[in-house]
Amino acid sequence: MTGPQAWAPERWAVRPTTLVRADGLGARLGCDLTLAVECFQPTGSFKYRAALNVARTVPQERIIAASSGNFGQALALACRVTGKRCTVVMPSTSARVKVDRVLSFGGEVDMVDVAATSRSDRVAQLAADDPSAYLASAYDDDLVIQGNASLGRELADCGPAFDCVVAPVGGGGLTAGLVLGLRERGAHSAVWGAEPALGNDAARSLRSGKIERNAAEPTTLADGARTLSLGERNWAILQHGLAGIVEVPEELIRAALISLMEEANVKCEPTGALALGAVLAEPARFANKRICCVVSGGSVDRAVLVAILSEGRAG
Amino acid sequence: MTGPQAWAPERWAVRPTTLVRADGLGARLGCDLTLAVECFQPTGSFKYRAALNVARTVPQERIIAASSGNFGQALALACRVTGKRCTVVMPSTSARVKVDRVLSFGGEVDMVDVAATSRSDRVAQLAADDPSAYLASAYDDDLVIQGNASLGRELADCGPAFDCVVAPVGGGGLTAGLVLGLRERGAHSAVWGAEPALGNDAARSLRSGKIERNAAEPTTLADGARTLSLGERNWAILQHGLAGIVEVPEELIRAALISLMEEANVKCEPTGALALGAVLAEPARFANKRICCVVSGGSVDRAVLVAILSEGRAG
Repeated sequence: MTGPQAWAPERWAVRPTTLVRADGLGARLGCDLTLAVECFQPTGSFKYRAALNVARTVPQERIIAASSGNFGQALALACRVTGKRCTVVMPSTSARVKVDRVLSFGGEVDMVDVAATSRSDRVAQLAADDPSAYLASAYDDDLVIQGNASLGRELADCGPAFDCVVAPVGGGGLTAGLVLGLRERGAHSAVWGAEPALGNDAARSLRSGKIERNAAEPTTLADGARTLSLGERNWAILQHGLAGIVEVPEELIRAALISLMEEANVKCEPTGALALGAVLAEPARFANKRICCVVSGGSVDRAVLVAILSEGRAG
Repeated sequence: MTGPQAWAPERWAVRPTTLVRADGLGARLGCDLTLAVECFQPTGSFKYRAALNVARTVPQERIIAASSGNFGQALALACRVTGKRCTVVMPSTSARVKVDRVLSFGGEVDMVDVAATSRSDRVAQLAADDPSAYLASAYDDDLVIQGNASLGRELADCGPAFDCVVAPVGGGGLTAGLVLGLRERGAHSAVWGAEPALGNDAARSLRSGKIERNAAEPTTLADGARTLSLGERNWAILQHGLAGIVEVPEELIRAALISLMEEANVKCEPTGALALGAVLAEPARFANKRICCVVSGGSVDRAVLVAILSEGRAG
């Protein structure tokens, strides 16, 4: 569709999550398993919930954000739909498909070599150049957390209560939103974070009782979770809101991605497979329970996907 | 979930199709594109609609069918849910995941070397051995067509009318069901069949005005369309019910599968990519129209999927 109606806001509402019962996979893992698939959101991940809430709410005409990709795409579309401008600071190692999509929605991409300059330093620089812009964190922002809370409300409203909702943790925007949204509806489902073991700052934070930081961006395959630490606003909710965090080894991120593809026909990115990876990592914890794993997004470079599918045990 | 409630029929209803707006892909192809994704049905394809209708309706306690896989899986689950027995005759070249799933639902698999014995001969042999069994065709059966008609009704009911509904053609069970279901609801959407060019018997049939047959099972990658000809009951509906058939070359089946994965996060089997392949093959025919492509199913061996993803142009 082209023409003036192409970017009409009503065409670009948040999509209710796509619930997929994964009975075969659940039977194998000894639990009752539902997937909350966010890969069919307008930009392919849950981040659109947050980005649209930010773009609709702030008065500023320009929004600047750092993002490993999905938030950037989401913000670019949300700004297009709401008639705003955005600049997305992305690490030069970002998946190419993610960069291209920011550009395709009319977003401006500012590439940064994270070995030389941190993304937050670069954002600060851009903000100094244009004080009228709104700086959106991809996770440490109340509007982001409130946007993500819509998923928690949907999961509370969709039928018999889940015993556990499991979702990936990077900066904590998704899990904090889930806690808020579920509690807002009076649902008592335990919220579990699924974090790459290679960047386990959130797990360490829960153990120590304060925000712990990774020394450098973790090299995990789950590029949506390559964060240095939880955000302050996320920590305030997660410190007491999370049931716990499961640290997922890289090989179980890969195994989970393969299982989602082969046993549930769900295509996702490595970060999107973290929640199922947590169930694979600690099956006893989730046994005989009604589990919802949030599959957070689907953007993955084809070469990465082929490598994962080729490395796994023969189908 | 295990225990007596595991196979309760209410857990195994047909899932309404999952509609996915594919705006980016549609924009590239110059049409307004929606995907009707059937990959999240209980057995991963639309065939469950038909199989459940057969198993629920016929009085016989045993059902025998020939199937290249998806109908077999669907029938095995439908029989499990309705307390019946089934035997599925499958070519020995079937995707391994499909064979395993028939077995996992308690179905009996009868493997046949189609180079030596045709599947229909083998079914006839089994039927002679047990005259009390019901013989279900995967497509040439009124109950199958009526089961598939539920998808046509859903597409008629889901919002502004589609100009065109495009779906794969093998024996014609899906397209015949779509024609019936859409017309039942008074929808005038044109129904287009998407057929592998390597096995273009349906296209030839429309041209000649009578059922044409392939000399041998076509070797197309789209294993759900490796049929010799349309069924009689399907032809009776399709001869005047179809707007036409697009013959899809193998390379466009592969390209469509890759596009569905990369541009819409939809994982499917080659047969499931045929409808989008038809739009790739004849874009001018579908330009500026509101198109629904039925993505019929998701079962594909990992090695086949990796080969397709690796062969395509670099992402």
